[in-house]
Amino acid sequence: MGVLVVGSVALDSIRTPHGLVQDALGGSASYFSLAARHFTPVQVVAVVGEDFPPASLALLRACGVDTAGLATVPGRTFRWSGEYDADLGYARTLATELNVFAGFHPSLSGEQRRARTLFLANIDPELQLEVLEQAERPALIACDTMNYWIDAKREVLLDVLRRVDVCLLNDAEARQLSGEAQLPRAARSLLDMGMRRLVIKKGEHGALFFSPDDRFFCPAFPHENLVDPTGAGDSFAGGFLGYLDRAAGAGAPPFRQAMVCGTAMASLCVEAFSPERLARATLEEIAERVRAVRALAHVPEMDLWA
Amino acid sequence: MGVLVVGSVALDSIRTPHGLVQDALGGSASYFSLAARHFTPVQVVAVVGEDFPPASLALLRACGVDTAGLATVPGRTFRWSGEYDADLGYARTLATELNVFAGFHPSLSGEQRRARTLFLANIDPELQLEVLEQAERPALIACDTMNYWIDAKREVLLDVLRRVDVCLLNDAEARQLSGEAQLPRAARSLLDMGMRRLVIKKGEHGALFFSPDDRFFCPAFPHENLVDPTGAGDSFAGGFLGYLDRAAGAGAPPFRQAMVCGTAMASLCVEAFSPERLARATLEEIAERVRAVRALAHVPEMDLWA
Repeated sequence: MGVLVVGSVALDSIRTPHGLVQDALGGSASYFSLAARHFTPVQVVAVVGEDFPPASLALLRACGVDTAGLATVPGRTFRWSGEYDADLGYARTLATELNVFAGFHPSLSGEQRRARTLFLANIDPELQLEVLEQAERPALIACDTMNYWIDAKREVLLDVLRRVDVCLLNDAEARQLSGEAQLPRAARSLLDMGMRRLVIKKGEHGALFFSPDDRFFCPAFPHENLVDPTGAGDSFAGGFLGYLDRAAGAGAPPFRQAMVCGTAMASLCVEAFSPERLARATLEEIAERVRAVRALAHVPEMDLWA
Repeated sequence: MGVLVVGSVALDSIRTPHGLVQDALGGSASYFSLAARHFTPVQVVAVVGEDFPPASLALLRACGVDTAGLATVPGRTFRWSGEYDADLGYARTLATELNVFAGFHPSLSGEQRRARTLFLANIDPELQLEVLEQAERPALIACDTMNYWIDAKREVLLDVLRRVDVCLLNDAEARQLSGEAQLPRAARSLLDMGMRRLVIKKGEHGALFFSPDDRFFCPAFPHENLVDPTGAGDSFAGGFLGYLDRAAGAGAPPFRQAMVCGTAMASLCVEAFSPERLARATLEEIAERVRAVRALAHVPEMDLWA
């Protein structure tokens, strides 16, 4: 059992209307693993430079994340900086320094190859393919990406997306990849292109799940005190795949319930800068948030023209 | 029992990527009444000019709408024209001709004053006040408005909104009225300003319901063949208030179920130009759409860390 994530561990500098942080723990694999580890064991494969703060490594380990696959190599850690406007919608990227990430080629150990669930976080689709070729038939594979790869490596990316069980995209990426302006048409087009299942994340507007035989909508938790949206998508993926891995083997994968868990973890993530809130969340807090998200869209019985 | 709507009956000229119509039946009261009449008796108070097509009047009557309050006066009928881009989001208004609507002052008959449910559609808030003063204590009053009145008559509008049971706004109007960029904060601010309950309509992203003791989210029906979004908000109001009027007297108002009915009627409305789809919808089709909307966000039982 357990989830393997291959992605980035980074140092983020972020400004939102609530304040700013400098060189805080970030990266897709950090957010993902600190969310997923509440549900199931997590192994990380990523790379950092020699300047990676020992305290950040200690935090991941203290949270039970298996960091055996987190290589430290000469050079500086991947850095990202961005800022948000008052509506806390999409980030404006100020700078991306790949640093040691530029030479990253994931190499999986025997234990990592045998993970039951695999998450290919947002990295070069050619690296995602390298991981797929090393993995030993995981029960479930999910994949994320970004606008840059949709533009720059469309064909390789499509190859990856057709080979995984669930593609996680945001609304802009789903539109860009499909060429359709309306999301339900974009989803149809992506399924027609050979993707098996889609999760389309819409930030404050919730998330959609599409498969050939189901359509599901999960509302976002209506935060009044959003602090920093960074990492919400990867935290969603962590809750989503963590729950699915935990439930694996007990019949059809419970995708709807997993969407609720993803939404709950994303909503905790955005209450603080960096994955700090995910690190200190208790199981009771998570269960309470899951209940709250589930209750948001619950409709009692109704009679029509009774 | 029954709903009274005071609003506009208009002739619309609309262009969408699916085609165009010229001088088609439109206006808030038309869409509202053709949606609500599936649930409960509807009376309309509005004004048209001598050029109003007999076929449109006949359509309203054939659908069972009580048009005794639809005055015909010398002059031309209110006209609106607009167009939509490929994403079929918000309308771009090309022209508004008030015509006979400029001199409209609603005067309610005895039967109209005694309606159990009252909908103040989007008209000058001073006219909405005139209607409130004539109504004889309806069980439920709901009110719509638009960006123009929020700018031009903010204080009168706030007076109206504080006096009604449910305020229906779209997301942009909620932000404009509250001055808050994030919707959950906008909703909190509007409740703090004295509004009792809020429905915030977000088009393709669904609709939110806020009261001091509940928050509910209803997804939009994921259309792949959206034809014309005009009237979706008023159709929503028609399904919402029609259902509430039908259910009146049987305990606490079933707002969540009413949101589903509103969503179902809006989703039927946008399948064709003008309120044509609302006019020909059958109870079976409506019940099926209500079931589909309800199923969209249904989450089966889930165990966490069982």
